[in-house]
Amino acid sequence: MDNITDVLIDKIKEKSNPAVVGLDPQLSFIPDCVKESSYKQFGKTAKGASEAIFEFNKYVIDVIAPYVPAVKPQIAMYEQFGAHGIDAFVRTVQFAKERGLVVIGDVKRGDIASTAKCYSDGHIGRVDIDGESVSVYDEDFITINPYLGYDSVEPYLSNLEKYGKGLFVLVKTSNPNSGEIQDLYTSGIAVHEKVGELVANWGKTSIGRYGYSAIGAVVGATHRTQAENLRALMPSTFFLVPGYGAQGATAEDIAVCFKNGIGAIVNSSRGIIAAHTSRKYARFAGEFFTRSVLQAVIDMREDLRGIVWN
Amino acid sequence: MDNITDVLIDKIKEKSNPAVVGLDPQLSFIPDCVKESSYKQFGKTAKGASEAIFEFNKYVIDVIAPYVPAVKPQIAMYEQFGAHGIDAFVRTVQFAKERGLVVIGDVKRGDIASTAKCYSDGHIGRVDIDGESVSVYDEDFITINPYLGYDSVEPYLSNLEKYGKGLFVLVKTSNPNSGEIQDLYTSGIAVHEKVGELVANWGKTSIGRYGYSAIGAVVGATHRTQAENLRALMPSTFFLVPGYGAQGATAEDIAVCFKNGIGAIVNSSRGIIAAHTSRKYARFAGEFFTRSVLQAVIDMREDLRGIVWN
Repeated sequence: MDNITDVLIDKIKEKSNPAVVGLDPQLSFIPDCVKESSYKQFGKTAKGASEAIFEFNKYVIDVIAPYVPAVKPQIAMYEQFGAHGIDAFVRTVQFAKERGLVVIGDVKRGDIASTAKCYSDGHIGRVDIDGESVSVYDEDFITINPYLGYDSVEPYLSNLEKYGKGLFVLVKTSNPNSGEIQDLYTSGIAVHEKVGELVANWGKTSIGRYGYSAIGAVVGATHRTQAENLRALMPSTFFLVPGYGAQGATAEDIAVCFKNGIGAIVNSSRGIIAAHTSRKYARFAGEFFTRSVLQAVIDMREDLRGIVWN
Repeated sequence: MDNITDVLIDKIKEKSNPAVVGLDPQLSFIPDCVKESSYKQFGKTAKGASEAIFEFNKYVIDVIAPYVPAVKPQIAMYEQFGAHGIDAFVRTVQFAKERGLVVIGDVKRGDIASTAKCYSDGHIGRVDIDGESVSVYDEDFITINPYLGYDSVEPYLSNLEKYGKGLFVLVKTSNPNSGEIQDLYTSGIAVHEKVGELVANWGKTSIGRYGYSAIGAVVGATHRTQAENLRALMPSTFFLVPGYGAQGATAEDIAVCFKNGIGAIVNSSRGIIAAHTSRKYARFAGEFFTRSVLQAVIDMREDLRGIVWN
């Protein structure tokens, strides 16, 4: 049976590129020429900002769509602008799907069952409005936080199956202090390994054609030893790997997340969408910023091909 | 120096009631008479649903405002309806504040630093739109998830101080499977105790007049031994206590979260706002549902007074 991870792997193969572009737009690096008309129409308001980031995303998505299998909008960058921001998030998801991309909603939700059901129905299912079934966010995957345990995950499972959706559960995150809780030792293994075992177990009923579950794991490339252990511990779990680029993961750090050239997708956010602010691509600033996005996404693809398929 | 926890404790004393009402509206228990006009105007759509829950919240808030110090809207119930839902959430926060209530945004966000900054500025700070400083959600407190460690918490701290806001960090949640990760043992203490120590430490610089930090902890009353240990371990940390009512915590379970009559606030959501669906208050169904909310909130107050100040 095909699951959403099969769809993702097929697209990775089609583009020969195990990369996902994080759509984390920040006003500070969106070129003035993109923001101008939104500000003129709506002012420097939550609505003006939301329109500007949606405009920016459309430019980025149009440029990267031929080269990457997926995008990962980070909802915080939209949610901060309230309802207008959420509207821009939803339109970004829809626009990316229209361009044939798999969409991973980076929402990192985690709550008790009755609440998790709302997140699940809203993001990867359908909400029931007194008999009317309505699709709201409709991402292909979302990220979730495991701290509350299985009953906080269970409300997503029926929607995975019913609507062909997927999850990436935080296991070992890429940030510097991730070890504070995730690396605590418990009966000889680290908390993140215990979480890894749980996630692998939760995913057992949704294994697809390539041998990977619809329930994946977020495993930061910035912690190589841990990533290597998790790769061995979770052979049927697909990894979403943050930490490439700005956060400093090396080629070797990335390589351990794969096996036989598949098993992971590597995220870069600012390294692609804010490429024009780096010295390397500075020649493409201002109205030519889409050329920096294009060059950065191609450079990342070549880099990953060297690492994964060398 | 006064912090937001001082403000909350003052309101608890003023109302003689350490209760917070969870605003987790579900269409399934909102009386038809409330939903009717929203559906007539906007249809059974995300907008119609959002307007219905906001209308419902206004009825509830008007009834409970004289009796409780605080409300805790659960954002998932709003977020599921997309931008319209978030708009209803923001208006609910504002309406509750206008009625003099402390507002705890139950958002349980947790992400890496650059992302956490967006959640922080959006929810408890101000967002910068190219030089314009805009207030968006403006809750008094929000809940956050600690799984990513200190650098995921740090971006909230400057807004706590700058805008007089507070946090409740998930330590030991009330749900049945919370122990799966939170109760793992590590060097002789449980993960939730380790998290409790971290939270107590993060809060040391924001202790207020009553001796409690602006960084509180979510500690479920459904796990009495753990709550008792945490109360001893975190003497300067104010507790937000879910689990009363529907989730089955007893009077003794609640009592251990307090010391000398303060130190905690106890949440009830459906037990109050869906009281009309229980047999006890069934005589107040339909258009009289606000009387069930009133009676339930008074009954809870009397119950808590007996537990905490007996």
